[in-house]
Parts: sequence; structure tokens; C-alpha cells
Amino acid sequence: MSAITTALTDWEHVQPPAARRLLTGAIAAFAERGYQATTTRDIASRAGMSPAALYVHYSSKEKLLFEISLYGHKAALDVLSSVEGSTPTERLQAMVSAFTVWHAEHHTVARVVQYELAALSPDHLAEVATYRRSISALMEKVLADGVSAGTFQVDDLPGTALALLSLSIDVARWYSPARQPPEALGSLHAALALRMVQA
Amino acid sequence: MSAITTALTDWEHVQPPAARRLLTGAIAAFAERGYQATTTRDIASRAGMSPAALYVHYSSKEKLLFEISLYGHKAALDVLSSVEGSTPTERLQAMVSAFTVWHAEHHTVARVVQYELAALSPDHLAEVATYRRSISALMEKVLADGVSAGTFQVDDLPGTALALLSLSIDVARWYSPARQPPEALGSLHAALALRMVQA
Repeated sequence: MSAITTALTDWEHVQPPAARRLLTGAIAAFAERGYQATTTRDIASRAGMSPAALYVHYSSKEKLLFEISLYGHKAALDVLSSVEGSTPTERLQAMVSAFTVWHAEHHTVARVVQYELAALSPDHLAEVATYRRSISALMEKVLADGVSAGTFQVDDLPGTALALLSLSIDVARWYSPARQPPEALGSLHAALALRMVQA
Repeated sequence: MSAITTALTDWEHVQPPAARRLLTGAIAAFAERGYQATTTRDIASRAGMSPAALYVHYSSKEKLLFEISLYGHKAALDVLSSVEGSTPTERLQAMVSAFTVWHAEHHTVARVVQYELAALSPDHLAEVATYRRSISALMEKVLADGVSAGTFQVDDLPGTALALLSLSIDVARWYSPARQPPEALGSLHAALALRMVQA
């Protein structure tokens, strides 16, 4: 994974530090209680700040969710686009492995991003949707490349791409670090993915 | 799917009708706003009742979530256990297809059940967990039968069983009836499942 991914998921790009504390506080609160049940007072309190101080950095609770969602999607897209491999088989394997590892390692952020989409404003949802389409397009591209090369046999290309993404994304729902290391899960999913396309 | 499944998911077993209205009102409210942001007043109002009348049927909001979760899990288990097939290949295909169809058709209930597990009391979570283990055991059993019969080749049996269930369950996250009919999605997933076990 590239340095960009690490920076994005560590929220180091969020400046000043007070804004970053509010954002990570919001992630924890949304994950624990859900977006609707979280107040800006809860979030400010987790960041050791007053509710009024929150508004200096974020004009609304929805703006916080949008920032989390936007950077979550950017990081996930970056994970898929930064893999290397000289063949579609190598690239698919690397993409599925990295996408699964990312959803295991960032399961809290991923849950908030995936389960609270409906709370975004229509404009913000539309912006996030462009990243979702790019993510799907990357997966469809590697499958199409494999079919062209004669190494993959895929009957329903968009459906199979969605199933492959789904397999990794659902990791965020049930993943627990106590269960297994992210890398082992990534390898299993990569192997299953190759079987799904009959590589 | 059996008659039991239909009855369970239609909540016809919940009597009297006032209790059923509260339960379906709770599903809608939890799905829209999340468990924590929903009040018993919201739920009672959706059922056209007073908050006091709610307590005649359910002693708490958590009791409502537990009932929803319990019957959701029972219905999902019933879907998997009621499939027929003379070979592991036929059974796996039928199980994955039916499980995917169920999660597409009942995506609202499935979301509430899956995403609000942490809101259950420890005792209620433990009871629901027994159904989750039974669901996993059914999927592991069909894979083990296929391996014994020499028709499946599975390297990581519990991991593959979890991946197969995950593929169906994640349908609840993104499914929209406008996208495709549940049956077409069930067929796609069944075909992918057979490839995953190299049937």
C-alpha cells in the first residue's frame, strides 16, 4: 500500500490537530451509537472541546460524516489503484487481498462509511458516489483484462465485480482482531477470488 | 422456502396485532434512524399507540430489538436448513441461492439485525449467537460433505463457509429492488459459490 493510503487512514492530513481530534471523536461516536444518536456535544466532548469550538472547524455534524466518508472512500480507492502486477491474475489477487486487509484494519471507519451513507446530504452523497463508481470500475477493468487475455472466464462481469468487492467490504461487519490477522484473511479472499473467475 | 420462513418473516406469528404493529414499526424506525436514536415514543407513534401502551407488549426497546433479531436469525437459519438436494453440489447451490434471495427480499430487517447486534443485552446476544453458530455449522457441513464426496476442494473450510455467508449477508447492505430481481442475484451467487469450492 502506498504512503498516501497510510496518511489518509491515519487522518494526518486533517489539520489543525483540533480538527483531527473532532474527526476521530466523530468516528468513535458514530460507530458506537450511530450517526443520528450522536450530538455535536458528544463529539466535542470526546475531543476535549466545547460544542461552540466544534463549529469553528465543522459547520455541522453532517459535514463531519461527509469528511469521514470522503476520505474513507478515497483511501479504499487508493488501495485498489496502487496495487502492482504484470498480469490480470496477479493484479486481481493483489487487489482483493489489499481491499480485504484494508477493511479488516479499518473496520470501524468502514462501518461508519458504509452504514451511514443515507445520512449524507444529496450533494455529498453524489460526490461520494463518484468514488464508489471508480472503485467498481477498477474491479470491472481487471476482470475485463483477464477475460481479454483469455485467463478469466466471467459470465456476469459487473455482478462478479460487485460480489468480489462485497466479500471484502463485509469483513468490516464481523472482523475482530482476535479472530485472525488481516493478512491471512486477505490471502484466503485472494485465493477464493481467483477461483470465482476460474483463473 | 418453507411456509415457516414466510410466516416468520411476515411476523404473522407475533400476536396480538398491536404487538405486531409495534414490532414492524420498530424495524422501520431502527432501519431509518438507528437503534440508539429511536425512542419508544417513535415506535409507539408508528403503531398508532401511546408510549404507555407499548409497555403492555414489550418491557423495553431492547426487548423489541431482541425479538426482531431472534426471528430474523430463526428465519435465516430456516432458509438454509430447508433446502433440498441429493448431492452436496445441489445443496450448496440451493443454500447460497436461497440465502442471497432472503437477504435481498428482507434487506431492511437484515440490516437492523446485523448492524445493531451490539445493542443487545449480553444474555440476548448469547441467545442470538447460538443461531449464528448453527447457520455457520450448516454451511460448514455442506462443504465438509462435498470434500468427503470428493466433489469439493476446500483449503480453509471455516473461512470459506464464512466467505460464502458473507457474500449473501452483504446483499442487505447494497440491495435495491430497482437493481435486479432477487432470484437473478441468487443464481449468480450460487454459480460463484460452486466455483469457490471448485465443484
